[in-house]
Parts: sequence; structure tokens; C-alpha cells
Amino acid sequence: MNASSTVEEKFDVLVRRQQFLNQDGKQAIKEILRTKKKAKIFWGTAPTGKPHIGYLVPLAKIVDFLRAGLDVTVLYADIYSFLINYLHPQPRELVEHRRRYYHLLVTAILQSLGVQTSRIHFVQESSYAYTKSFVSDFSRCCSLMTQQDTPDTMDEEGRTKTLSPLLCCVHQYLADIHLDTDIQFGGEDQRPIFQHASKIIPQLGYRKRQYLMNAMAPGLKGGKMSSSDPASAKIEFLDDARTVTDKIMEIPIGESHGGYSTDNAVLGILRTILIPLSELRLEHHKDEFANDAFVSADAPEGTLFTIEVAIWCFGECVRKHYKSYDEIEEDFRCWRMGEEDLKLAVARSLNCVLEPVRRRLGSSEEWKELELLAYP
Amino acid sequence: MNASSTVEEKFDVLVRRQQFLNQDGKQAIKEILRTKKKAKIFWGTAPTGKPHIGYLVPLAKIVDFLRAGLDVTVLYADIYSFLINYLHPQPRELVEHRRRYYHLLVTAILQSLGVQTSRIHFVQESSYAYTKSFVSDFSRCCSLMTQQDTPDTMDEEGRTKTLSPLLCCVHQYLADIHLDTDIQFGGEDQRPIFQHASKIIPQLGYRKRQYLMNAMAPGLKGGKMSSSDPASAKIEFLDDARTVTDKIMEIPIGESHGGYSTDNAVLGILRTILIPLSELRLEHHKDEFANDAFVSADAPEGTLFTIEVAIWCFGECVRKHYKSYDEIEEDFRCWRMGEEDLKLAVARSLNCVLEPVRRRLGSSEEWKELELLAYP
Repeated sequence: MNASSTVEEKFDVLVRRQQFLNQDGKQAIKEILRTKKKAKIFWGTAPTGKPHIGYLVPLAKIVDFLRAGLDVTVLYADIYSFLINYLHPQPRELVEHRRRYYHLLVTAILQSLGVQTSRIHFVQESSYAYTKSFVSDFSRCCSLMTQQDTPDTMDEEGRTKTLSPLLCCVHQYLADIHLDTDIQFGGEDQRPIFQHASKIIPQLGYRKRQYLMNAMAPGLKGGKMSSSDPASAKIEFLDDARTVTDKIMEIPIGESHGGYSTDNAVLGILRTILIPLSELRLEHHKDEFANDAFVSADAPEGTLFTIEVAIWCFGECVRKHYKSYDEIEEDFRCWRMGEEDLKLAVARSLNCVLEPVRRRLGSSEEWKELELLAYP
Repeated sequence: MNASSTVEEKFDVLVRRQQFLNQDGKQAIKEILRTKKKAKIFWGTAPTGKPHIGYLVPLAKIVDFLRAGLDVTVLYADIYSFLINYLHPQPRELVEHRRRYYHLLVTAILQSLGVQTSRIHFVQESSYAYTKSFVSDFSRCCSLMTQQDTPDTMDEEGRTKTLSPLLCCVHQYLADIHLDTDIQFGGEDQRPIFQHASKIIPQLGYRKRQYLMNAMAPGLKGGKMSSSDPASAKIEFLDDARTVTDKIMEIPIGESHGGYSTDNAVLGILRTILIPLSELRLEHHKDEFANDAFVSADAPEGTLFTIEVAIWCFGECVRKHYKSYDEIEEDFRCWRMGEEDLKLAVARSLNCVLEPVRRRLGSSEEWKELELLAYP
């Protein structure tokens, strides 16, 4: 992808694996690419619990945004984190420690994906949320919303009786405007809030924004992987290689219709995290990436994933090379591959992805200090 | 009252006719008077519907505050008014028109009560609510509150489904802090919100504030008189003399235990508005006040209210002079005074109070312009 790439080429890279709010969104995003020299996109994260490997999904997607020539902002929603109020009773200092913790980690992940982080704007919500124009929009937005809008749009906030979480979605709507971006990018779980934002923003008198949504990494015990989950239901970047392998090996694999079920977190991690990363590696920056992460040295060109499959009747293993996720799922579902074979391959690949991140952070004094401050 | 007045003397003037949150409040207010050279007090009003004569209760009390040597602020809660959201769909401009309308009216009333308005600070909420320190306190306050706190503390906000009214009480709590006052002064209807504020403010890390509450002027059809009521249930400053008289004459007077009931708006207006104003006149600034408002020229010293009472058996009237509200209530309850006699006296006195306000505003071009802008 380069300066001479067509709008269609950029569009294809920008939106692959993404969902839209509706068909109009597709057209609108093409129009943005056609008319703007450098469209602006942002991804926001609230510094709350320790980040898990689900963050690899949006962060890998940022590589695509940069390739498509977009101006990319990572937003640390620090005021949002305070309002969501997990952090009482010493919240503001803690939020700031966690914001710094997230930043070190996000930076290390992006670097391990071959991203020059100098190309990205890192912004804190608190850098614009104390302006008169923000506060004024905040009041206006609240006057256009019902008290039920927040519980309707956000799971977490439907479970609390505290007042402040009701205000979180207002902060999310206004990020579009006060970062002055064209596209907001988040997970599928954000669909209701993006839908509401796309209704509210024109009522506030601003131009419509567009929304892209990635698939969610699965939690080890079902649902999406979430920072609020207990450590046993998620894989954290901090987990050492052995812990990662143990967690993967313990994921329950169901059976259905005379084969393995495909509804499990092992395949989910493969589909949402590992295969997209392997595609990136193939297309884009093979050399900067851990080469043996996904594919063995003897694999043919175009291989996305290699799995050592035990052939029991012969008492030996064969190496199988796959060019797509679907081929793996098919082999697995039809018992042409053992549960342990798949799990070991996924655990090994995931560890290869996490290793450079752990290495970068392990040598950082700031990181060690922040681990104690942010998660005492 | 002068520089040599004792703390006890100042205290008595400051708190007369006022209720406290609790006994501690009494001691705390004495302590404030003892230790501070010039204690600070504020009264806030939200520019929404057209002000009614109930405003005479707090505005007359301001005379006492000044006599007791306090530093007095009148707060126009303009952001609060926006959030309460009566005013959709062209709200912000409308709030500002109404703020200016309120200011002209409040100034005219205070002047008609003999107050030098240069001694009062007139402040708009929007002058401090866009500061970082306010916004930060706002978030903290919301994180300490439940969603149910607002409906529990404020009638109006329990009736709405819009999000923004939930935030009004937060603005009220923070006014104490961001005006840097010692005492907030409001109506009895504010008791739950003052109680909640006195709980929240120390949790935010600020010193406790004190609260004084005046009696509420009664609505013509029961309950308190409110800006949100229809015009027939309140008397507005704008009402001409005839309308005021008609409204008073139509107030229903019940009977009980072989006499008139004392639970009616005629006696309520007399007790909460006219008698306190007459006391002020007697004590303080007899000459600046409409002299014939309450007392006939032949009344003996110390008379607070004169009523022409018809003596039916003789076919004539006698002028009765009262030195307290209780004497009037007693005569009325025991049928020693006719319903019409009382109503006419109240209507006449009220018109005498309103007349100078109407006169001041009637000659103001700004007022005429604002009437159209603020209440189109």
C-alpha cells in the first residue's frame, strides 16, 4: 500500500474483518477516504483492570489503519475510568498510574507489531474534557438523553447504582467530537453505544461520525474476554509462558454432531488474534515479527498456521500447514486433529507473540514501578 | 445593628424565622459569626418560569443578612436551569434571557425593600462551572452519589426521565464550595438536598457548610407556590393590581371546628410575606418603604397590620390594629373578622408591596425587551 493506492484498495485494508453499523456506513467511509487527504480514526481504552490479550485484536488492526494512510489516535479515557468508579476510594491517582501502565503496555505491543509509535497520537481524555466547549456539550448531551439510555447501551453500567457510570457514555459520544475524528473504532460489544452516538451527535449540531467494530476475543470461560474478569478467565500480557500454556490447555472443548464443537476459546483466540497477526506478518513486515510464531520453517509459501498433528495409528506426528482459519476449523471439527495438538499450537504461537512484549517491559524500571502503583 | 453588635444579636437577626438542619447547625453558625470577620452566605435561584411573590420571602430575608453584617451572594443557577431542561429546544439562549429577566426583577425587588444592591454579589453559575476544579469536583461528586439520590432529594427531578436533571443537585452541592461561602440559604423544600449536601461535601474533602431554610409561600391552590405552577395558582410580579386582588379573593377558605380554617393561602401569604415585610419596615427603613402598605395612619406604635373589619350588626366598619400575626389568625379563626375583610386587606397590602416593583420595571426598556425574549 502506498501513495498511489486507490480508494478501493485503502478501503479494503481499512475495513477488513470489521463490522459496520449499517450499509450507509460503508458508503460514508468510502466517501471520507475519497474526500479527505488524511482521514482521522481513534480507538479508546479506559485504564481500569490489567489489559488482556484481547487488546491484540484492535492493536493489530491499527497496523491496517496506518497502511490505509489514516491519522490514528489512541485515546486513554481517564475521566471515563474515574466515572466508571471501580477504583474508589483513592481513584484519581490510581487512574493516572493505570493510564501510564496502559501506555507502556500499548506502546510495547504496537512496537512488537512493527508499528512506529511516533506515527500515532496518544491522547488523554483529561486533556480536552476540562474545556468550556466540552463541558457545554456535556450538558447539552445529557439534556438529550434519558436515564435509561446508558443501561441500555452499556452492560457494565446497567449493573451499578452509582450515579457517575451513567455519564460514561456521554464521554464516549463526545470523544468523536472533541478529538475531531471521522471514524471511531471499537469492539462489537460497542454496537449499542455507537448506534446511540450516531443518533445524538447530529442532534448536538455536529457532522455524523462513522464506526468500525472488530470481533471480540473470547473469554476462557465463555462470553467476551474482559478486564473485569477474574485472572482465570482471561490471559494477561503479564502471564508467563507456563501460565499461558496452562490456561489454554484447561479451556473446555465441547463436542457436537460427532465432532468437536467450534464454540470454544481456543478456536476463538486462533480466529480473532493469531490468524490476523499471521496475515499481517505475511503481508507486511515479516522480518520484524517473531518468524517462527505461527509457521514452521519448512512451510510452503502462503501458510498462515502450522500445527503438529499426532497420527495415533502410526505413533508419530505430521506437520500440517494451513492457509486459512477455515481449514483448521474443518480439520478440528471432524476430529482430524486432536484437542491437545490444537491447544499446544495455539499456546506456543501466543507465547511467541507475547514474548517480545514481556521482554520489552521486563527490562523497564518504569514498568516495575508502575506495576506496584497501578495494581497494588 | 452596628459594628458593636454582639454575636448573639447578629445571630438572632440572621436566623429569625429560619429552620436549621439540626441543633449542631445553630452552634456552627454562631461559631462562624464569632470567628469570621464577614461570614459569607448565598441564595440561589434557577431562571426558569416567571418568578412569583414567593420570592419576597427569601429576598426580604436578605435584608436581615446584610443587617447581621454578612457578605451576601445571589446566585443565578443558569446551568442548573439548562439541565432541568424545561426549555428545550432552544435552551441556552433562552436561559440567558431568563437570567437577565430574573436579575432585573430581583434587583427591583431588593431596591423596593430598601437594599443597596451594590452591597450584593450577583453571580452566574456559568462563571465558575467551566473551570477545571469545578469539573473535577463534579466527577468526584457523581462518583459518591447513587442514581436514586436525586429523585430522593428533589421533587421536580423525580418526575423526569431525562438524564440531565439528575445532575442538578450536584450543581447545587458544588455551589457551596465554588462560591466559597459558609452558609447556603433556601426554602424548607430544600431540606433533603441540604441534608445530602452536608453529607457529601466533607466526603469531597471540603469543610462543612451550614444551611438556613425559610418558610415557603403557599400556592393559591395548596402546596408551595412554584414557578412551575399555572398562573392561576400563583401570583406573579407581573400581575396587575386587579389580577392580584381577584386571585386573592378567589382563594378558597375552609371551615373547621366552628370557625374558619387557618390552612389557606390568604393567611399563608400574610404570615410568610406580609408580616415579615411589615416587621422589616418597623425596625429598619420605615421611610423607604410604602408607608401605608400594612398600617393605617392612625395606628398605635408597634402595629404590624391594620384590617378594616365590618361589624354587621351596626352596619359599619372598625379599624383593627394588630401587633402580631397570631392575633390576626385568632380573630379570623373565631369569626371575629369576615373572610372578605381579611382578603381585601391582604390584597391591598400585597399590591402596595408590588406597586414600586411594577413601577420600576414598567419604565425600563430592557425589561420590555426581555419580557418578549424570555417568555415568548
